Amino acid sequence: MRVGVIGLGLIGGSVARELAAAGHQVLGSDAREGSVAAAQEAGVLAGRLRDAGECDVVILAVPVQHAPGVLALLAPGLRQARLVMDVGSTKAAIVAAAEAAGLGERFVGAHPLAGDHRSGWEASRQGLFRDATVFLCPTHRTAEGALLLAQELWQGMGGRLEQMDAGEHDRRLAWSSHLPQLLSTALALTLAEAGVSRDQLGPGGRDMTRLAGSDARMWSGIAAQNAGPIGDALAAFSTQLDRMRAELGRAGADGLRQELDGGRSWFEG
Amino acid sequence: MRVGVIGLGLIGGSVARELAAAGHQVLGSDAREGSVAAAQEAGVLAGRLRDAGECDVVILAVPVQHAPGVLALLAPGLRQARLVMDVGSTKAAIVAAAEAAGLGERFVGAHPLAGDHRSGWEASRQGLFRDATVFLCPTHRTAEGALLLAQELWQGMGGRLEQMDAGEHDRRLAWSSHLPQLLSTALALTLAEAGVSRDQLGPGGRDMTRLAGSDARMWSGIAAQNAGPIGDALAAFSTQLDRMRAELGRAGADGLRQELDGGRSWFEG
Repeated sequence: MRVGVIGLGLIGGSVARELAAAGHQVLGSDAREGSVAAAQEAGVLAGRLRDAGECDVVILAVPVQHAPGVLALLAPGLRQARLVMDVGSTKAAIVAAAEAAGLGERFVGAHPLAGDHRSGWEASRQGLFRDATVFLCPTHRTAEGALLLAQELWQGMGGRLEQMDAGEHDRRLAWSSHLPQLLSTALALTLAEAGVSRDQLGPGGRDMTRLAGSDARMWSGIAAQNAGPIGDALAAFSTQLDRMRAELGRAGADGLRQELDGGRSWFEG
Repeated sequence: MRVGVIGLGLIGGSVARELAAAGHQVLGSDAREGSVAAAQEAGVLAGRLRDAGECDVVILAVPVQHAPGVLALLAPGLRQARLVMDVGSTKAAIVAAAEAAGLGERFVGAHPLAGDHRSGWEASRQGLFRDATVFLCPTHRTAEGALLLAQELWQGMGGRLEQMDAGEHDRRLAWSSHLPQLLSTALALTLAEAGVSRDQLGPGGRDMTRLAGSDARMWSGIAAQNAGPIGDALAAFSTQLDRMRAELGRAGADGLRQELDGGRSWFEG
């Protein structure tokens, strides 16, 4: 098949690598000229993507705040595509945009849970999706053939598929992904103000601040698109933190011990 | 030298392994009978520690809340020791206890920044201190010979030494170590309440919750001994979080973008 990949960053670049290795003809484009050239030199791209209308599969791997606009712009020209997918971390807005653009039958929203604080083509690699959860969010009208093709492609890349409604995806990811990201950033800012640098941290502190190195533009887009559910998650965390601060002030540390025990029980599953 | 190690958990066990491998005669004790037997079987211990008074070096590796009491109990019998050390995550209380027990000249508080969420003899290993920061906190009266011996032993285990006052150590570690630990626990409790399990997390979320698996007894002891500085750190984080929640509610996400940029700048150092 001929596959067009728009955006050759960490996720888009890794998808391009996998699909090229699987024998598909991959064409690509990116706002950064150098990424296209590098992907061609690496033998991943058969060429530059000039007309998405000639592709059997079109994969949108641009920041989530730009994805709906790019999709609306491309939609009228997608003559040949049997499947159109995105790979962003939020799903409700892009699925709604696909339906509004008349792509409902051919669109499947995808979100591989395979982030990394590094970004760009340089960070892309084969194997990134091996055993990673991949959420697939069809529209209300996705055709069976399009969904089957999406499943086949992601399974081929090593993903473990989980299908769900786009709204539910976004509510769940607010807790499991967006909350940890913002807490890591808040910790980084707190340490910055306290004059503590990252090389003063032990292994635990370094783990807790790794996500703070993530792409700021990407994450501000995600936060804006999913502000409601993220706000709920931050509020719940804040309540938990207030409880912990109150326990810390009490003599004996029994309450805090119970909280630490509770966290460990959750950790052990 | 004959070295007595009291407490054969992750840190004490790893110290025993290193010093035995370096050719010292290591004797050990632990509240868990099985750990002593396992350490003897592994060829690490030359025998059970029965009389700390016969040791040239005594290393206390028990939970921080018990360390001052154990030290006070042992002090009168330490006939031969040239150096007495602990390895706990807080330093002010144990240094004060050493001075009060008349061990000021022979005592050096040590804290290797080499934690792990796993604990116990089973988790101990050689190499744990390789390139790890090791804080050394002398008393007001530590003799030069005792300090030099402590430096030599930790350098031999691969540590990078940093000497500082015990009070300053505890204030700094409240930010760099105790704050990340408690945030990881608070995140675990938040996710538990939201019905999100750890296997639903991606790589970032798993990193952010690894510390929640830490030993609860150990950490409640640390929190109780360093409650003041930790309270300051939690308060500063809470302020940062409130700011982030306010930015999230604003249209455009410019403020949040600036925060994410700020976190990334700190990350990149």
